[in-house]
Amino acid sequence: MARSINLAVIPGDGIGQEVVTQGLKVLSAVLPQDVKLESRQYDLGARRWHETGETLPEAELEQLKSHDAILLGAIGDPSVPSGVLERGLLLKLRFAFDHYVNLRPSKLFPNTATPLEGRPDIDFVVVREGTEGPYVGNGGSLRTGTPAEVATEVSLNTAYGVERVVRDAYERAQARPRKKLTLVHKNNVLVHAGHLWKNLFDQVGQEYPEVSTDYLHVDAATIFFVTDPARFDVIVTDNLFGDILTDLAAAVSGGIGLAASGNINPTGAFPSMFEPVHGSAPDIAGTGKADPTATILSVALLLRHLGHEPEAARIEDAVSADLAGRSGARTTDEIGDAIAVRVAS
Amino acid sequence: MARSINLAVIPGDGIGQEVVTQGLKVLSAVLPQDVKLESRQYDLGARRWHETGETLPEAELEQLKSHDAILLGAIGDPSVPSGVLERGLLLKLRFAFDHYVNLRPSKLFPNTATPLEGRPDIDFVVVREGTEGPYVGNGGSLRTGTPAEVATEVSLNTAYGVERVVRDAYERAQARPRKKLTLVHKNNVLVHAGHLWKNLFDQVGQEYPEVSTDYLHVDAATIFFVTDPARFDVIVTDNLFGDILTDLAAAVSGGIGLAASGNINPTGAFPSMFEPVHGSAPDIAGTGKADPTATILSVALLLRHLGHEPEAARIEDAVSADLAGRSGARTTDEIGDAIAVRVAS
Ligand SMILES: CC(C)[C@H](C(=O)O)[C@@H](O)C(=O)O
Ligand SMILES: CC(C)[C@H](C(=O)O)[C@@H](O)C(=O)O
Repeated sequence: MARSINLAVIPGDGIGQEVVTQGLKVLSAVLPQDVKLESRQYDLGARRWHETGETLPEAELEQLKSHDAILLGAIGDPSVPSGVLERGLLLKLRFAFDHYVNLRPSKLFPNTATPLEGRPDIDFVVVREGTEGPYVGNGGSLRTGTPAEVATEVSLNTAYGVERVVRDAYERAQARPRKKLTLVHKNNVLVHAGHLWKNLFDQVGQEYPEVSTDYLHVDAATIFFVTDPARFDVIVTDNLFGDILTDLAAAVSGGIGLAASGNINPTGAFPSMFEPVHGSAPDIAGTGKADPTATILSVALLLRHLGHEPEAARIEDAVSADLAGRSGARTTDEIGDAIAVRVAS
Repeated sequence: MARSINLAVIPGDGIGQEVVTQGLKVLSAVLPQDVKLESRQYDLGARRWHETGETLPEAELEQLKSHDAILLGAIGDPSVPSGVLERGLLLKLRFAFDHYVNLRPSKLFPNTATPLEGRPDIDFVVVREGTEGPYVGNGGSLRTGTPAEVATEVSLNTAYGVERVVRDAYERAQARPRKKLTLVHKNNVLVHAGHLWKNLFDQVGQEYPEVSTDYLHVDAATIFFVTDPARFDVIVTDNLFGDILTDLAAAVSGGIGLAASGNINPTGAFPSMFEPVHGSAPDIAGTGKADPTATILSVALLLRHLGHEPEAARIEDAVSADLAGRSGARTTDEIGDAIAVRVAS
């Protein structure tokens, strides 16, 4: 457990700044007096790109390496061509810092919205691969803009990359009471990538005899997300399937306003990065309507990653109590204040 | 409107034979006396593969071309390595017969199950591209089975292929009362394929000024499928996203037992193929528990495609009435009988 935390903060675009402010408020409130918190803000995102054309210059990438962890708000703005900031900043960080475990827990807290009838018992975590698959940016186009255009996207998958994330997922499953791990892929169509995943899933599984396993095609998995989400404990899946499934998971378990995530490099070679699953929501930026809870829960994941388990749990308990007690609409600031008060007491 | 229908029937695996039998029963019952129905069964699927190693021999592919349409039950069996039958038979047919429109309507009929609270008004249709994208089988693996393995999957997208399916979707949107078309992709990450789709979507849209349009990333789309499915009218999307979204669509609108689909070649150059969205469900094969309704609704799509609109509508009305009146569990056969009686009267 570190006696000091040297944090990089990337507020980003839209509601990013607003939610990050609340995350930092709760972080300050929860940390013991003797843990020194330093933080530095990085001005990256749409504004910076418009001004300088830069998304993530090498110098700043270097500086970011010196931090213990990164807290990110949200990236993306309609004024910037689609993909520029996502690939030039967010994904660049995930890839440069080898965030191969994209951790996305889903838990249906009391008194939160779910579109599902009967409020099923939802408490699972998706371990999404973060550095391979269709996200590698290995596509191209030929005769662009003509009727003869051909565009490709290549999904790259390596035994190296799949084995390590699968192993991480087994470790997490092993540490949970139900000890259940589900692989999600589409190995009846994407046979090469699918077989690589399935073979390594089976192979690594031999080292975890206590973990029970199953396999689902991604299309079938979406059905269970809405008809029987309680069946899931830990899910491991590829980068793109994980992207899709975790938005759906958020939707059924309290909404995108509550979904936290960690982009984790378990080796510690580079700082891990924590961010809400939601986007920059430019339509509500500045209105005080953004829910900072997902960012606050991401701060809990950040603390757990840095070895501050009691503080992480205190935030999660505070969020749970806050949600249970809430009634009526509150501003971004009010939610942050309420949770900060709870963790401090 | 054809005065005769020369049908190819591929029952396939698992519950395939059972549901196809009911589909044919309803087809016979609904057709006017003067429409001659001929059909020929093709023995393709797991049994055939085990016996001969064949999935879809050239000779049979040739024979299939002579039919007006194909009715397919389900393909896939746990005794066959994953992908062999899917790619060697089902996808081979979709690609060989250039089924570029994979049509998948979702409608929440009265008295049917939905996991969604408040029973939203669901009535949309997904136009899934059927001949390109990550389904082209253009992947491979290097150093297979070793710790140095690399596996790829290539998504191929052409202006030719995207433009025609997008146009088909605009035509369908134009013909519906709400005239709304949503493009679903992931153009902030899959920028090359995504931009091809988005550009053609915008370009073709200029020819359909009455159709209102919007764009959603696939992850965000899954959220709306469970929080606000009523917002959708027609959706056009890529092969893999369409696969995932239509299982989710089925889950929220009555379940996979009701989801019909058509693999359509709008040019008529090859026979179109109609099948339930569900799989072969080997666990319930032979138990009489399979719901043949999805296959029966697929027969309605088949009739509509062949110009028999009144008969198609009669089947859909009969299914709606049957569902509204049902109570308690019924066998596969009982459901087929009940609907056949309704369409005949
Ligand atoms: C913004 C986008 C690039 C990102 C992703 O696709 O990973 C987001 O959807 C997420 O899930 O973090
Ligand atoms: C069986 C499988 C190959 C198929 C697909 O992925 O298209 C199925 O899931 C479907 O949706 O028809």
